Amino acid sequence: MLVTLCGGVGAARMLAGLVRVVPPPSITAIVNVGDDTVLHGLHISPDLDTIMYTLAGMDNRETGWGIAGETWTVMDELAHLGGESWFRLGDRDLATHLFRTERLHAGDTLTGVTASLATRRQIGIQLLPVTDDPLRTMLTLTAATELGPAGTEVAFQDYFVRLHHDVAVGAVRFAAADAARPTPEVQHALTEADQIVVCPSNPIVSIGPLLAVPGILAALTSRREDITAVSPIVAGKALKGPADRLLEELGTEPSVVGVARLYAPWVSTLVIDEADRDKAGAVESEGVRCVVAPTVMDSPERAAALARLVIDTGV
Amino acid sequence: MLVTLCGGVGAARMLAGLVRVVPPPSITAIVNVGDDTVLHGLHISPDLDTIMYTLAGMDNRETGWGIAGETWTVMDELAHLGGESWFRLGDRDLATHLFRTERLHAGDTLTGVTASLATRRQIGIQLLPVTDDPLRTMLTLTAATELGPAGTEVAFQDYFVRLHHDVAVGAVRFAAADAARPTPEVQHALTEADQIVVCPSNPIVSIGPLLAVPGILAALTSRREDITAVSPIVAGKALKGPADRLLEELGTEPSVVGVARLYAPWVSTLVIDEADRDKAGAVESEGVRCVVAPTVMDSPERAAALARLVIDTGV
Repeated sequence: MLVTLCGGVGAARMLAGLVRVVPPPSITAIVNVGDDTVLHGLHISPDLDTIMYTLAGMDNRETGWGIAGETWTVMDELAHLGGESWFRLGDRDLATHLFRTERLHAGDTLTGVTASLATRRQIGIQLLPVTDDPLRTMLTLTAATELGPAGTEVAFQDYFVRLHHDVAVGAVRFAAADAARPTPEVQHALTEADQIVVCPSNPIVSIGPLLAVPGILAALTSRREDITAVSPIVAGKALKGPADRLLEELGTEPSVVGVARLYAPWVSTLVIDEADRDKAGAVESEGVRCVVAPTVMDSPERAAALARLVIDTGV
Repeated sequence: MLVTLCGGVGAARMLAGLVRVVPPPSITAIVNVGDDTVLHGLHISPDLDTIMYTLAGMDNRETGWGIAGETWTVMDELAHLGGESWFRLGDRDLATHLFRTERLHAGDTLTGVTASLATRRQIGIQLLPVTDDPLRTMLTLTAATELGPAGTEVAFQDYFVRLHHDVAVGAVRFAAADAARPTPEVQHALTEADQIVVCPSNPIVSIGPLLAVPGILAALTSRREDITAVSPIVAGKALKGPADRLLEELGTEPSVVGVARLYAPWVSTLVIDEADRDKAGAVESEGVRCVVAPTVMDSPERAAALARLVIDTGV
């Protein structure tokens, strides 16, 4: 069994590669829920959905989020009404949120409803939220924005979508993490995994929430020799999103060395891009085995090649 | 000021006539919320929406519900996912429910959010839910259905939409009515009204919930001389929906005489259709003044003519 730790887009691409080289039923994805939000009364799980749409072949490669060929009838009407429309929900995407919210209201867990959606979308792999409890990533902004003065704490989607992550962050907090429990399915997966792969996701706000769930970091640390991470930082930059800036703002060098330092306590191998070949020695100085490879997954073939290489690191 | 007591379609047609003969800002509609439901986490207020869409000229005259020219992208996808899709929510209609639910979650009242929607839709009249509290119409079915054995109590939309009101009813209950309070706006309207018109709505499940809110029946009784009702029963039949069957099942003759008997304690004048001219004497025997007129509003002109006549009964 192969277990992956996942945020959204980077993880979705990694998984799209992995399903080409190992049987999908042998893959379990443990996914961040710190980005989840309730909008218009609907429970939205952006990372779970990005992975699901990508593996179902429904993803919009142009935007990096949502569904290809999506329509916007509901949002356009909502904007006409003067409703909150900064978080764009496409018509087909909305069906996912209606389905999820209905089931949650009826007493199902996020794990249960995610399994139902994964089955309906025929994605093949096991898709697991890290917790069924309401963990939420919160960010303290160091500058004034439309949401308040400097020092205001906002939820992840306010930072990421509403403010286009175009503001400096002074602190990140995982609200309610102390009370969150890893699900039995997640605990089982971490125990039974033959190999654990940390996808090239944001270390702070995608992988960070997983580690904030009590018990997860200890479980990972005990599996350190079986854990390989793919760096989300290439040549000092995030391929997508604010990972580089967040690392720097929170005191970690935005480079593969900084990633190695963050992950070293529980990751034994870091895969870095060829562009960072000159940093391989510095990565190993952090106590992490370093593998250099092409990591930019700009085609399914390159994603599959990276997936093959990552699996081979664990053999 | 003209105040109307309203269910859905019949009331919407009456109001569409009234706005043609009196200035819309002088009209206040007090509307049933017993049909309201939460589906997929969304707060749905069918009677408020039917009136709003009708007065905004958006109503679908063919179906009698929803929006003309509606699309169904979200529902089709939800059905594909295996979600609950028996209550069909069109794409543009969904925007209303997202808007309402967002505002309610943010702490607004149903009265407040309804006023915002009415303003955005430019309907001209004041539209008021009878209460901001969660009153719900419940029906006990006397036969087995897909929802349970005989004796099962179901919510209104389960009866009306899911079972197509194709089952006999043994009892109607307005859940949480005892704890519901009429809004200040409703209390003010009932006190200040020059005339009160009971629209041709279902006496049991549309007007009944209004009367179940503590204080409403007493307020109406004190205004009896100023209250005119239009019979929703014509020649022993409801023009739409199950009013005739419900009246009979619950022990009231399904005729203008039965309606007169139900309303007599608080209504002074009943307008009946020409088809029931022979029952005018029997209606008056119930202690209600009887006016005979064409009441079938199958065109805006006929609705306006009826509106003019109803207003004249109060002069």
